[in-house]
Amino acid sequence: MLSIIQNPDSNQFDQLCERPRLNENDLSGTIQSIIDNVKLNGDKALLEYAAKFDKVDLKSLLASKEEIEKASLLISEDLKQAIQKAKQNIEKFHSSQQSEPIKIETTPGVFCWRKNIGIEKVGFYIPGGSAPLFSTILMLGVPAKIAGCKEIVLCTPPDRNGNINPAILYTAQLVGITKIIKAGGAQAIASMAIGTESVPKVYKIFGPGNQYVTKAKQMVNAMGIAIDMPAGPSEVMVVADELMNPSFAAADLISQAEHGADSQVILISNNVNYINEVNIELEKQLSVLDRNDIAKLSLQNSKAFVIENREDITLMINTYAPEHLIICCNDQSAILENVYNAGSVFIGPYSPESFGDYASGTNHVLPTYGFAKAYSGVSLDSFVKKITYQEVNKEGLINLGNAVEKLAEAEGLTGHKNAVTVRLKSL
Amino acid sequence: MLSIIQNPDSNQFDQLCERPRLNENDLSGTIQSIIDNVKLNGDKALLEYAAKFDKVDLKSLLASKEEIEKASLLISEDLKQAIQKAKQNIEKFHSSQQSEPIKIETTPGVFCWRKNIGIEKVGFYIPGGSAPLFSTILMLGVPAKIAGCKEIVLCTPPDRNGNINPAILYTAQLVGITKIIKAGGAQAIASMAIGTESVPKVYKIFGPGNQYVTKAKQMVNAMGIAIDMPAGPSEVMVVADELMNPSFAAADLISQAEHGADSQVILISNNVNYINEVNIELEKQLSVLDRNDIAKLSLQNSKAFVIENREDITLMINTYAPEHLIICCNDQSAILENVYNAGSVFIGPYSPESFGDYASGTNHVLPTYGFAKAYSGVSLDSFVKKITYQEVNKEGLINLGNAVEKLAEAEGLTGHKNAVTVRLKSL
Repeated sequence: MLSIIQNPDSNQFDQLCERPRLNENDLSGTIQSIIDNVKLNGDKALLEYAAKFDKVDLKSLLASKEEIEKASLLISEDLKQAIQKAKQNIEKFHSSQQSEPIKIETTPGVFCWRKNIGIEKVGFYIPGGSAPLFSTILMLGVPAKIAGCKEIVLCTPPDRNGNINPAILYTAQLVGITKIIKAGGAQAIASMAIGTESVPKVYKIFGPGNQYVTKAKQMVNAMGIAIDMPAGPSEVMVVADELMNPSFAAADLISQAEHGADSQVILISNNVNYINEVNIELEKQLSVLDRNDIAKLSLQNSKAFVIENREDITLMINTYAPEHLIICCNDQSAILENVYNAGSVFIGPYSPESFGDYASGTNHVLPTYGFAKAYSGVSLDSFVKKITYQEVNKEGLINLGNAVEKLAEAEGLTGHKNAVTVRLKSL
Repeated sequence: MLSIIQNPDSNQFDQLCERPRLNENDLSGTIQSIIDNVKLNGDKALLEYAAKFDKVDLKSLLASKEEIEKASLLISEDLKQAIQKAKQNIEKFHSSQQSEPIKIETTPGVFCWRKNIGIEKVGFYIPGGSAPLFSTILMLGVPAKIAGCKEIVLCTPPDRNGNINPAILYTAQLVGITKIIKAGGAQAIASMAIGTESVPKVYKIFGPGNQYVTKAKQMVNAMGIAIDMPAGPSEVMVVADELMNPSFAAADLISQAEHGADSQVILISNNVNYINEVNIELEKQLSVLDRNDIAKLSLQNSKAFVIENREDITLMINTYAPEHLIICCNDQSAILENVYNAGSVFIGPYSPESFGDYASGTNHVLPTYGFAKAYSGVSLDSFVKKITYQEVNKEGLINLGNAVEKLAEAEGLTGHKNAVTVRLKSL
């Protein structure tokens, strides 16, 4: 199933790690007209797009209190408990990312500190369709609440009856979303970036979406609205040897492959026999997979590498910079020591990616497509601004004033210098 | 000098806080051709641009070891000491931003943690011209080193003799820049984003620049290269009353105004007489300022507000979201308690903005133009990726496995479910 590349030369790693090229239709014209329409017509534009794209005449863009309450009755107690369990773990892990201001006296009389303050207004986009991604609401809503964001807006497209999937509504109220808007696609992104009668303008937009959503996020980002991170197809790299049951590796590869036809999965092992066993398992598991048409397409983009040398395995990981790295092999500690490009790492035989996708506590919004070289996954940090403060007393002014005067003068900024001089003279 | 607006209605704050519109020439065509040329011709393109824009025939794009060593002899001992002092303070404050991984057991047997890892390759752009911004090298280089970035590239345009200002060279070697490249403008940004024979390709680009540099950063950002933050003209908001000598307030306003004709300065006081006194001081100080032509233009964009009510002052600060906030007034603690949109805050009469610009220890690369609503200034965080890890043992698999299966099933992702099921069955 996976095509096997044996002992590639490390000079080829860059090329071997290139992602499949994305389809780049130029959507900017289409999306600009949507942005302009939302700017000009607000809610009216959103209602028109709902009629056109979602085939529904909405009475209201906002999910009502009654709809939200009813949702809770529509989903099973089991599922509710699973959602609550996931929420608890995500809360525990993201709470551990909090930090208290530390006041530093950098020079006697010069005090500096930093405080984390929640971004006042944030917006989430959650796609609709067959798979209701309520797990992403947990991944975004839980840290937003811990951060202290005051307004948390969620946009998701309604179905043809004007309803939102109850698991989405239930999770949204559970995490404390303040407004749930029935809007999808680029128009949803535009509405949160600009603000309409029903949709508050937010300062940062998070969440996955199709190519229209992605492009709209890019375009409002250029308008000054922050976004979570650049988007790309999901991917996993599995590094395994006989320490991991081949059926586990196959299951992990498939769980990534079922995301979409453009997902990429990579297997690395020091042993070609192991890869052959995984391939056999892939066949078996695919035959009974619900989304097997998607997974098969995705596996066509995918590869297995036989790499014997530990340093080369590490180099391949760092060159690829996988969104998800699953590692279970004899050398795992030594390899992990030197892995510096990855989104989230799953260690050992009992750590499937699905655990991180749903409930271990780590965030599943992660940098993909090689962006892990410079970007981090979503975390508490994504929802705060870190404001710095300084307070200088007379002693500090005296101790550091001359140095600042000197530096300002050398940069030719005598106004900067004078702001110190007038103070020094006043003493 | 500053036009005074008395007791504005809080409904008008949004409008009053609008920044002057930026000149938006569409430079994307010009810059795309520069990017294409650098991609195709590498160093050769950079050498041609140096001849064209910097009017110099460079023998080498790299600053040589000899040039760097000579620089140290060309600047005064006083200036060197001031630079070292600033470096120490910046190091102290940014070192305090380090954090150790905390391992959390979110469910018995499920362990999650997060590690900060320096971005392997980063690039800095430092403008040339009359004012050599060596202070920005400290602000970027010091945290990059603490973060553990391995390759730190600096691009700055050479003068007509092919030289780089010695203060820039001295500071660059002091902080441990690994390569200093003689290249300016959009071509410098393109070279770091793409890589050439002399310039390593980097994953994140930092630093200020003119509209070509800014646009080039935006464009390579869209290509997947991370950048520090969106750019805009520098600005300060001063909130003061009789607790601050009016000459201090005037000096702070001027120190911002001298940055550029598009800088904006705002003064808020509860007392119109205080503002009048500041205006008188502005006249006095401007008359002896070196860059007084620039500062005068900037002051034309600028305003003073008389606002009596503490809540309204706070609202005005949060609406404007100033890059720099200087605050010295009777209510300062109560106001600061509720300020959530600002880049860096300067508290009390002896904390001029120049201290933060150079040497207090905080970073001077800050979100401007209202971006402080969603963005933080540069900090140690800007140079690291935070990778998450999880390790689940058998107990954890049993404790959390069923919840994950349930959640995956509810999202219609049975491959995700199966990755848990195969493991549970194996026990």
